[in-house]
Amino acid sequence: MKNLFTLSKEELQIELKALQKSYEEYKEQGLSLDMTRGKPCKEQLDNVSDIISTLTADDYKANDGLDCRNYGILQGISEGRKLFAEILGTSWERIILMGSSSLTAMHDALVRALLFGEVDSEQPWSKEKEIKWLCPVPGYDRHFLITETLGFSLISVPMNENGPDMDIVERLVAEDSSIKGMWAIPLYSNPDGYVYSEETCKRLASMKTAAKDFRIFWDNAYVVHHLYDDKKGSVPDILSLCESSGNPNRVYEFASTSKVTHPGSGISCVATNLDNIAHIEKYLSVQTIGPDKINELRHVRYFQKNPIEKIMEGHARILRPKFEITLSILKEALLPCGFARWNVPMGGYFVSLFVYPGTAKKTVSLAKEIGVAFTPAGATYPYNHDPKDENIRIAPTFPPISDVEQAVGVLCICARLSAVQKRLEEL
Amino acid sequence: MKNLFTLSKEELQIELKALQKSYEEYKEQGLSLDMTRGKPCKEQLDNVSDIISTLTADDYKANDGLDCRNYGILQGISEGRKLFAEILGTSWERIILMGSSSLTAMHDALVRALLFGEVDSEQPWSKEKEIKWLCPVPGYDRHFLITETLGFSLISVPMNENGPDMDIVERLVAEDSSIKGMWAIPLYSNPDGYVYSEETCKRLASMKTAAKDFRIFWDNAYVVHHLYDDKKGSVPDILSLCESSGNPNRVYEFASTSKVTHPGSGISCVATNLDNIAHIEKYLSVQTIGPDKINELRHVRYFQKNPIEKIMEGHARILRPKFEITLSILKEALLPCGFARWNVPMGGYFVSLFVYPGTAKKTVSLAKEIGVAFTPAGATYPYNHDPKDENIRIAPTFPPISDVEQAVGVLCICARLSAVQKRLEEL
Repeated sequence: MKNLFTLSKEELQIELKALQKSYEEYKEQGLSLDMTRGKPCKEQLDNVSDIISTLTADDYKANDGLDCRNYGILQGISEGRKLFAEILGTSWERIILMGSSSLTAMHDALVRALLFGEVDSEQPWSKEKEIKWLCPVPGYDRHFLITETLGFSLISVPMNENGPDMDIVERLVAEDSSIKGMWAIPLYSNPDGYVYSEETCKRLASMKTAAKDFRIFWDNAYVVHHLYDDKKGSVPDILSLCESSGNPNRVYEFASTSKVTHPGSGISCVATNLDNIAHIEKYLSVQTIGPDKINELRHVRYFQKNPIEKIMEGHARILRPKFEITLSILKEALLPCGFARWNVPMGGYFVSLFVYPGTAKKTVSLAKEIGVAFTPAGATYPYNHDPKDENIRIAPTFPPISDVEQAVGVLCICARLSAVQKRLEEL
Repeated sequence: MKNLFTLSKEELQIELKALQKSYEEYKEQGLSLDMTRGKPCKEQLDNVSDIISTLTADDYKANDGLDCRNYGILQGISEGRKLFAEILGTSWERIILMGSSSLTAMHDALVRALLFGEVDSEQPWSKEKEIKWLCPVPGYDRHFLITETLGFSLISVPMNENGPDMDIVERLVAEDSSIKGMWAIPLYSNPDGYVYSEETCKRLASMKTAAKDFRIFWDNAYVVHHLYDDKKGSVPDILSLCESSGNPNRVYEFASTSKVTHPGSGISCVATNLDNIAHIEKYLSVQTIGPDKINELRHVRYFQKNPIEKIMEGHARILRPKFEITLSILKEALLPCGFARWNVPMGGYFVSLFVYPGTAKKTVSLAKEIGVAFTPAGATYPYNHDPKDENIRIAPTFPPISDVEQAVGVLCICARLSAVQKRLEEL
C-alpha cells in the first residue's frame, strides 16, 4: 500500500476491498491470541525457576545472624536493601523492602499521603479541596487507575523521546499548588520505551513547584530490563539530583524483581531520602510487623549464584526476537502507508503504536472480533480516554513468537483497514 | 507471704524488707531476659523449617494448571483458599488470600472503609464527623494502634471469661451510630486466653447496631493454637451466624499461618460474605496484581505432607512447659497473697496477670531495672492507658524455659514488692 495521504478516493476504495479480503482470510483462521499484558513468558520463568528451591531448610540466617523466619525487621534485611541500592545507584539506608508488588508500594505511599500527609505537608492530602496528579501520556494504565481511584484529578502531559514535555510540566507545577505529584517511568517508559534524558531528570529535580510537598513517583520498573547489551539505556540517580537541587524529599523511587525472577513471588522496594524513610516507617510499623524476609534471603542467595546482569541477558535473548518481529512487521506493513508511527525501544516490555487519528478503538475492536486481543485502546491515557484515539499498546513478551507474528500482522491489517475507512469518510 | 489484706502495717514492713532483699539478690545476677512479644521460639521454627525447601523448581502449577510464577489471581490460588476455608469452617469462595501479615489485611480493610466506605455505607468513613471503635480490654496493642492511628476514638469494653461484656456492647452499639465496629479475638483472646462463648458469638451476630455499616474485625489468630489436645477451645462460624441473623455483611474474619509455619514468611487471609468479597476485590485490584502464589503453593504442599493438626501438636509440646512453669510460679508466689488474679489459658500465646491495682507500671519498671523486660504496662489498653494500672501481659513462648522461669520469678517478686508498698501507702 502506498502512502495513505497520496491515494485518491478511487485508489482508497480498491485498497479497502483488498484489506477487507485479507481481514476475512484471517477471520477464517479462527485465531485466539492474547497480546494484552506485559507478562514474562514461560521460557523466561523457566530460566529462573531454580530460585524456588534455592534456599535449604537450614539457610535462614541473614548476614548479621538474624533469624529471617521470625517476626520483625520492618525495613527488610540489609543485604536485600544493599541489592536494590546497587541496582538503583543509591545507598542502602535509603531503601525499604516491600512485598512482591511494587504497585502496592506505590498505592500505599499515596494512601499514606492522603491520610497523614508528607513530611513537608501542612495537612493530610485528603483534607485539600482538590488534588491533582500529572500523568505523562501515553502511560501505564495501572498507575492512572491508582490515582483516579484515590480521588486525584488526572492531568495529561505529552511524552516525547526525552521524557515528559518539561516546558508544560514546569509551567503546570509552578502555577497550581493543588498538583501534588506526577507519575514517571524514566527508563523504557511504558508503553513508548523512551528514556528520560539527563536534562529532563535535572529539570524534574530542580523545578519550582507551587506545592511544597510535591512528589514524583519514579517507577524504575525496567531499570535492568535492556534488550541490547551494547545499547543499554540509563538515567541518573534521581535521589541525589533532587538532593543537590535542594528538593531532597521530592522523589519516591520504586523497583522490583517482578520481571527479573518471578512476577508472582518477587520482592520490591521503595527508595527515598532519610526524612521520607522515617516518615514511611512511622506508619508502616502500624500496618505490618515486617515483610517476608525468607523471600528476601531467597533472592539474595539466588543472585549470589546468578548475577542479575546474566539473568537479564538470558531474558533479552528470549524477548529480542519477539520485539524484532513486531517491529519488522510494523515497518513492512505500516511504514509505507505514512500514517503510523512508533518508537523502537531498547528495553522494557512494550511497543507503542500510533495509528491514524480516530482509529485506535476501531483497530483494536476489529482485531478482537477475529480473536486477537490487544490492550484496550485508550488504556494508556487517564480515564481510558485517548483524546486523539490513536495509541495502541503492543505487549509482545508473553505469547510464543509465532503468535506475536500473527497477532501483529492482524493488527497492521486492522490499522490499515480502519485508516482507509476513516480517510474515505474524511475526503 | 500471707494474704496481703490480712497483714498489719508492721507485718507489711517486715514483708517489704524481705522482698527488697530478694529483689537485690536478683539484681546482682545481672539478668537480661526478654518476655515482651508473642513470638515463636527457635525450636518451633526449626520444627517447620522443611517448608523452606518444600517446593522444587518444577513444582509451580496450581491444581487447575495455573502457573503460580506469573502475575495474576487476585484472590489467591483456590487450594490455598480451601485450606483456610477448612480451618475457619466456611466456604472457599468467602476467602481472599493475603500476604504474610494478617495485621496488614486488617489495616488495609480499615483504610478501604475510611477512603471508600463499606457496601452498606452512605459515605466513606473518613467523611463522618466522628468514628468510634470498640476495644475489648485487656486486648491486643497492635489492634488498638491501627484504629488509633487511623483516627478512630477508642472505647474500652471489659472482657470476662465469656468474651466482651455483651450488655455493655449491645447498649453502646444500639445508641451510637458513630461506633463503626469492634476488635475481637474470639479464641484464646490476647492476652487473657478467654474463649468467646456461643452466646456471646450469637449476640454479636444478632445485636442491633445504630450504624448500619457496623463491622466486627474477627481476628481468629489462634484458631488452631491449642495447648491441650483434650481441651481444645472453639467458637462457632461467625459468618454463618451473622448471615442467619440477617446481618450478612457484619464480619471480616482474619487468620494466618504466622504461628503455624514461620511468622516472617507465612500466608494470611480475610474471610467474609460474598458482597464484602466483591467490595474488597474492587479496590484490591487497584492496590495489587496479586499475592505471592508461589508461597501459597509452598504452604499447600507442606500441609499436604504435614497436617496442621500435627504441626500444632508439635508446637504445643514445646509451649506447654513454658505456660505451665509460668502458671505454677504465679500460683505458688502470688495465689497466697490474695491480690493477684489470672486466667489459665488453654491456647494462644499469653498469660494475662492482674496485679494489685495501681502497681502494674511499677512492677514492670522494677523488673526492667534488673534486666527483665515485659510488655509495657498499659499496652493492653487503648492509648496505652490502663485505668486501674493493674494488667501485665506475660509472653512466655519465645525465651528458653529457664529464662521464663527466672523472669516470672522476678515478676512475682516485683509484683509483691509493689503491692506491699502501695498497701502501706494506703493504710
